[in-house]
Amino acid sequence: MDDETADPWLAALEYAGSGTLVAGQILALVGHSQFFTDFDKEDITLMAGYMEVYRARAGDVIIREADSGDFMLLLIEGTVDIVKQDPRGVQQTLTQVVPGMIIGEMSMIDGEPRFATCIAAESVVFAVLTRHNMVRIIMQRPTLAAKILIKLVSMLSQRLRQTSNRLLQYRQV
Amino acid sequence: MDDETADPWLAALEYAGSGTLVAGQILALVGHSQFFTDFDKEDITLMAGYMEVYRARAGDVIIREADSGDFMLLLIEGTVDIVKQDPRGVQQTLTQVVPGMIIGEMSMIDGEPRFATCIAAESVVFAVLTRHNMVRIIMQRPTLAAKILIKLVSMLSQRLRQTSNRLLQYRQV
Repeated sequence: MDDETADPWLAALEYAGSGTLVAGQILALVGHSQFFTDFDKEDITLMAGYMEVYRARAGDVIIREADSGDFMLLLIEGTVDIVKQDPRGVQQTLTQVVPGMIIGEMSMIDGEPRFATCIAAESVVFAVLTRHNMVRIIMQRPTLAAKILIKLVSMLSQRLRQTSNRLLQYRQV
Repeated sequence: MDDETADPWLAALEYAGSGTLVAGQILALVGHSQFFTDFDKEDITLMAGYMEVYRARAGDVIIREADSGDFMLLLIEGTVDIVKQDPRGVQQTLTQVVPGMIIGEMSMIDGEPRFATCIAAESVVFAVLTRHNMVRIIMQRPTLAAKILIKLVSMLSQRLRQTSNRLLQYRQV
């Protein structure tokens, strides 16, 4: 399969077929999904065609902190815990991700190591977009690529504002 | 002039012509600029054609916190201080920006209010890319648009990792 990821964690999970199979489910999510706010039905169907669907069970590691990573995922069913070791070595839960949200987009784009670990909190279904397929979208569907990238910039901007604001509350300069 | 910004702060500064005029200067910056790492000469010349150049003097406000903002800027000469009021109302200097760096990309893309104030620390020259012209790049030069957007995602990812790490050092969960 040309689109299969080389990621060892994904490879250990249950592959559930092409994203086209869940295009309907992805469409049903649109109303709730921050990611797809500005996407029409055609955009979502097109994007789903570049994605692959996986399932994981409660406790399965989907992404591990400090690993290299070449994909992002759209959570379709279930919840995922995002955890990270703090500087004292204590595992902290940073947030919980619900269906319609995106995970792993930073490493997918910039190739830097994974920032945090993502663990299925229950049975989950998610659609994976690899860097390889993101490049294919840029080459084959540049308008769709621009929409996806603008959405990623917007999501990251929002998170950076929130994180910077929280940091300002702690700083005692 | 079709590309002129409606931004009141920019309008108060000295307009210095089309970005094409400083394409050579932008090219000279490439070696030092995080932003242009993956851009070739043609990309930079093309992008410069969508930008407008402004000058500001020491103390001039270029961007003001909480304003709406429709542009980002590439600093070409001089340094810019990024300051923000913390929750206690104290003005904090968040960082200082040097030539080759980008300012204001979050609001340019997502239309949310400016997160911080940007003040010229000395005489500065910068090239402005408005949202309107970013949309034109997406329509007319989609491959260049994808490069620009991927770079913005990478820059924001890097800043989000740094900010999140610093926040983790403060959290006592």
